[in-house]
Amino acid sequence: MREVLVIGIGAGDPDQLTLEAVKALGRLDVAFLVDKGDEKRDLTDLRREMLREYAPRARVASVKDPERDRAATRYATAVDDWRRERAANYRDLIRDELTEHQTGGFLVWGDPALFDSTIAILDDIDGITFTYAVIPGISSVSALAARHRIGLNRVGRAVQITTGRRLATEGMPSDVDDLVVMLDARNAYRAVEDDVDIYWGAYLGTQDEILRAGKLHETRDEIDEVRAAARARKGWIMDTYLLRRRDR
Amino acid sequence: MREVLVIGIGAGDPDQLTLEAVKALGRLDVAFLVDKGDEKRDLTDLRREMLREYAPRARVASVKDPERDRAATRYATAVDDWRRERAANYRDLIRDELTEHQTGGFLVWGDPALFDSTIAILDDIDGITFTYAVIPGISSVSALAARHRIGLNRVGRAVQITTGRRLATEGMPSDVDDLVVMLDARNAYRAVEDDVDIYWGAYLGTQDEILRAGKLHETRDEIDEVRAAARARKGWIMDTYLLRRRDR
Repeated sequence: MREVLVIGIGAGDPDQLTLEAVKALGRLDVAFLVDKGDEKRDLTDLRREMLREYAPRARVASVKDPERDRAATRYATAVDDWRRERAANYRDLIRDELTEHQTGGFLVWGDPALFDSTIAILDDIDGITFTYAVIPGISSVSALAARHRIGLNRVGRAVQITTGRRLATEGMPSDVDDLVVMLDARNAYRAVEDDVDIYWGAYLGTQDEILRAGKLHETRDEIDEVRAAARARKGWIMDTYLLRRRDR
Repeated sequence: MREVLVIGIGAGDPDQLTLEAVKALGRLDVAFLVDKGDEKRDLTDLRREMLREYAPRARVASVKDPERDRAATRYATAVDDWRRERAANYRDLIRDELTEHQTGGFLVWGDPALFDSTIAILDDIDGITFTYAVIPGISSVSALAARHRIGLNRVGRAVQITTGRRLATEGMPSDVDDLVVMLDARNAYRAVEDDVDIYWGAYLGTQDEILRAGKLHETRDEIDEVRAAARARKGWIMDTYLLRRRDR
């Protein structure tokens, strides 16, 4: 039976690979690389370096990621279409690139469990049989907390992980004091009125890493500028942040 | 200057160590082991094995963890007292066991950012100077999701991580559909009336690992039994679970 491994490869620092991930990479006959377009070539290069180091015998097979309709007003529907197309692509890839008894792997940034669709896509595939396993990775959320040397939650309290879109439409939830925001393409932190600190990080674990922290209302202008400058310089940005209510 | 490393060592499987953690262990002059009493000797043994393998030149220094007053009605205050005592213990440990220019490390299960107090304790220490860094680890939350091959959040939605205590007093939050529960000493999932699936795991990543999943209302009795039996057999349990609202 064909075997597929979904391998969390950490937030950007190759040393964030776990020993389990290194062993999994070493077992790969084929590494599946998802091509998300030129703007993230840095990330593709980083993955290729990991493969050279830890999966020297793996053949690389690329799959072109379909464009997602980011202008769609019905976000969930647009994502569903996009996923269906990806599932067909992934099915073809597994069927055409792996012979029976071979092992292929998807290298997923961060942790495959957090804001990544690979597992859901594999669940959507039908028409072929394969086994698969997931290898957890260091998420950008963990990396952010480690670099700022903070906990994500405070004693006895909850932490919520959400998207920039949800923060923009719903604001800071009333039932949590610590909110991690991912995939914020439009500076949703700007509109937060609550008295919170922000712990922000971009390109975590890479040589381009940037960190900023402080009272949100005093820090957000600087983060806006740093963010815009970094995006202009590199062509893309990957960042995340924690909003933490100040204790009254 | 003395240097302290807070090293996330994963949820129980030594292969969940990251390469960064392995390198950090290799740099240690002293490994600080927090002794939480006999009932968790399995975990202490596991840590000692990791040290033998990856920190052969480190001397081991144990610190006795003060008992926490679990019967206290004012949870946060009890935890504060407990923390203050721990800060004093940790300060003494760092001062007495490390000479200048030496490196000591705390080995933290899971991810130091999630429901662990080591970082907060180090922040509370005064009277000595030292530098410290945090090395992120695979949390039991990531391990749970990987073993069940599920994402923690669904597309465009949030996930919240909370405690059994909060679930028991506040129920399932209305603003999230995916809730991870940690430190549930009293089967708080029993009282949840919402239509949710449960993904439960204990001793994740170890040879004692147990997984169960299904509709909460059909699965909770079995989880109760498995949990009680495991706790009776081993003397302690370390488990976590995800409650996921079923789509209507």
